[in-house]
Amino acid sequence: MEKVNLAEKLASFSTHWDPKIVAELNGQHVKLVKFQREFVWHHHENEDEMFLVVEGKFVMEFRDRSVPLGEGEFIVVPRGVEHRPVADDEVSVLLFEPASTLNTGNAGGERTVAEPERI
Amino acid sequence: MEKVNLAEKLASFSTHWDPKIVAELNGQHVKLVKFQREFVWHHHENEDEMFLVVEGKFVMEFRDRSVPLGEGEFIVVPRGVEHRPVADDEVSVLLFEPASTLNTGNAGGERTVAEPERI
Repeated sequence: MEKVNLAEKLASFSTHWDPKIVAELNGQHVKLVKFQREFVWHHHENEDEMFLVVEGKFVMEFRDRSVPLGEGEFIVVPRGVEHRPVADDEVSVLLFEPASTLNTGNAGGERTVAEPERI
Repeated sequence: MEKVNLAEKLASFSTHWDPKIVAELNGQHVKLVKFQREFVWHHHENEDEMFLVVEGKFVMEFRDRSVPLGEGEFIVVPRGVEHRPVADDEVSVLLFEPASTLNTGNAGGERTVAEPERI
């Protein structure tokens, strides 16, 4: 039951597309992730995902539109909806999602992080 | 599937101890709340609660210790653990908790918000 400082946690890693678990509650994970450029198109069969920008900005692309997100803004991507995060510059994002969530969802592949590190 | 801007949502209300629902996912609510001074001692039987400071600072009191929290810091209070948030000055906090969570937990009483507003 210690507090978590987001800036300190973010300073402790530099890898991209490599989500880190910083807390767990009610079967959900709170994760931090840094990324730049585009991810793979994917959806999650059974999980809604929340993306909250901590530092920087990015665009959440959907098949029919794009939503730009800046610091202090979040979006919830419902299960089943294809999406792809894209960032021109490095961005730091807080994720809320079920503990069962895989970063690449249905797409799988080499960018899958099967067991995110706890930091 | 619209984005949510925390500052805009916070600017839309001024009441204290009156949580507002800003998103729902996976049976969880994302809420924003403003408060000052101390709340009632309480615990939640079946819900873990996450408190993330968006603006300002507060102290999460437990029966045996206190944890000061500033902007960009969060704490998870596990189910069953008695707690009481206290703030000298107004603070704005993001809550992440099951949709079933009542603000006063087991304590009940006049400060209970049975049906938080969605904003």
